[in-house]
Amino acid sequence: MTGAVSVSTVVLVMTIGHEELEWLTLGASVFGGGGGGDPLLGHLMAGQALGKTGSVPLIDLADLDEEDLILPVAMVGAPTVMTEKFLSGDEGDRLKDEIEAALGRRVAAVCCAELGGINGVIPVTWAVRTGLPIVDCDLMGRAFPELQMTTAALAGVEISPVVMTDERGNVVKFTTITATWAEKLVRTVVGAMGGEASMCLYPMTVGQAKAATVPKSLSRAMEVGRILLEATDDPIASLCQSVDGYSLVEGKIIDVERQTTEGFSRGAVTIEGTGTHGGRLLRMEFQNENTVVIEDGRVLTSVPDIITAVDVHTARPIVTELLRYGQRVSIVALPCDPVWRSDEALAVVGPRAFSYDIDYVPVEEICG
Amino acid sequence: MTGAVSVSTVVLVMTIGHEELEWLTLGASVFGGGGGGDPLLGHLMAGQALGKTGSVPLIDLADLDEEDLILPVAMVGAPTVMTEKFLSGDEGDRLKDEIEAALGRRVAAVCCAELGGINGVIPVTWAVRTGLPIVDCDLMGRAFPELQMTTAALAGVEISPVVMTDERGNVVKFTTITATWAEKLVRTVVGAMGGEASMCLYPMTVGQAKAATVPKSLSRAMEVGRILLEATDDPIASLCQSVDGYSLVEGKIIDVERQTTEGFSRGAVTIEGTGTHGGRLLRMEFQNENTVVIEDGRVLTSVPDIITAVDVHTARPIVTELLRYGQRVSIVALPCDPVWRSDEALAVVGPRAFSYDIDYVPVEEICG
Repeated sequence: MTGAVSVSTVVLVMTIGHEELEWLTLGASVFGGGGGGDPLLGHLMAGQALGKTGSVPLIDLADLDEEDLILPVAMVGAPTVMTEKFLSGDEGDRLKDEIEAALGRRVAAVCCAELGGINGVIPVTWAVRTGLPIVDCDLMGRAFPELQMTTAALAGVEISPVVMTDERGNVVKFTTITATWAEKLVRTVVGAMGGEASMCLYPMTVGQAKAATVPKSLSRAMEVGRILLEATDDPIASLCQSVDGYSLVEGKIIDVERQTTEGFSRGAVTIEGTGTHGGRLLRMEFQNENTVVIEDGRVLTSVPDIITAVDVHTARPIVTELLRYGQRVSIVALPCDPVWRSDEALAVVGPRAFSYDIDYVPVEEICG
Repeated sequence: MTGAVSVSTVVLVMTIGHEELEWLTLGASVFGGGGGGDPLLGHLMAGQALGKTGSVPLIDLADLDEEDLILPVAMVGAPTVMTEKFLSGDEGDRLKDEIEAALGRRVAAVCCAELGGINGVIPVTWAVRTGLPIVDCDLMGRAFPELQMTTAALAGVEISPVVMTDERGNVVKFTTITATWAEKLVRTVVGAMGGEASMCLYPMTVGQAKAATVPKSLSRAMEVGRILLEATDDPIASLCQSVDGYSLVEGKIIDVERQTTEGFSRGAVTIEGTGTHGGRLLRMEFQNENTVVIEDGRVLTSVPDIITAVDVHTARPIVTELLRYGQRVSIVALPCDPVWRSDEALAVVGPRAFSYDIDYVPVEEICG
């Protein structure tokens, strides 16, 4: 084993304790765009792992050596399953052990493979349990449904070896010829494991990570979460200001379509405008995450920009699996990380990657 | 890496060249019991790997050191798929490399995980390509459809790590909590890989293998194949004599039911007796391998004894996927290896493991 990180050389950016965990949970739900699973579950698990007084170091890529190994981790599967099939808590240890054996070197830190949803929070649990710090970056700056939809793949980092484990203790390691094959094989094993599993992917050095991740995304999510928690007068305005976002409509959900197929939650909601938005009718579709908002045949916003339904009074995000008839919501759209707006990136995460035959237009050009 | 075998210490039992490959192919089809895939495909691949003059050493467990590592290998999937989705030939190298990396020691020899069908022959290909000898033993003494149906599992040898690879180069390693979980996860990945893949499982030391394999099974299959090739007067009688078997009926196939589901070939054929067997009507069912023969509601023979349909004139076995309306066949039943006849073994491979609510009765007690 080589590449062990000396704790004494690590400069702490900050620590994640119970208060920061509250901020992170809320921020991760904003950037989740309705997907990535309910962060509340991650919050409960991470809070339990932290205990009454614990915390975990949140460090910056610059605080590590260029050759240090960082390990992006995440849960994978259908968010609808995650709400009723829980982790055992030691998934992180198994992922770390397997990847260290495969690569013959020690992991220096974990990071979030996916900022949005439960995956922005669950790595805190595994960091506590493995004794590793968390790096302040992720591979999406939001949530996406498939494994090749990462800044790491965009930067040419190999996805393999990918390691998966379930709460029972089964461990599967994939070395695939492409990220798309990893997605295909992982997805089928997720099904056999019961619709949800834990994984690590795109193991990389700090040197690689500097050009292959969305930097400072956890601290940004925490800041957004803190602002939202402290907002009193007009939470939706505070939220929009903190994320450069736009409130597309305020209204009532009058229809929900939902199905869980092939490990994905797919569906749509119809929102009828209320108050000053009376007479408007919008359709928001989702494939794990919210993908498009349509009004009168016009696309108001689409992936890869982030679309989040929030409670109209508190501005708290509502994940797609908790959308219900009668809820009063505001639909907030915010710009994705600029990395996703190149032609090369849009080929992987733009509307056409989700089977919409439309061109992507940045949300600020439509709504600004 | 430790445990490298010194070639100079290996005493050769015999070598497998082109002539022995002919014998082995025919013998493997007898012990396949209709399943395990068409050995002809394995014969073509192994013949190509051997080249014009090549051979591969067939050694005995006693010729190796107790601590030497042997690697059981096989193809996995639906025989109906194997006839149209071919190997690339370097699967054995990938399996060997991955298991050596996982266990941190060198493989001394390969063996057949399954004697019957294509898996009695395909390891010759991989032995040639990897430069390893083949050990004269296997884990079934026949063919079975599921991974936990092995003498290794019966002897308490761990199935993990299991390694799978496809012809494209994807590699998946499983470390599971039980053999049944390995079966479940492997089967789902087989589907995603296109219905067929290559694998190694139950890696074990020679010391373990002495109590966890069917010994001398390849040389026995070669002897049966040789006898069958040389038989002229009454090939079916020669076959039955060589395997202590019984010809249950001679007749014509008048109905074939077949479906490929969940990676398995399932179905049944109806045989109408001809000649001195006129007026008889038998049903032979299969789940990859032939499982039972029924006449007038009476079970004539069942798993784990071996049931093989052979051409009525040549006594050449016919795999289930090549059974056709109008074929003239004899149904030959032969005793399985005695290891399968304990209560403990029958719980895994007896009629009830294949969803038949009947007790197993050895074929020689019914037909002898």
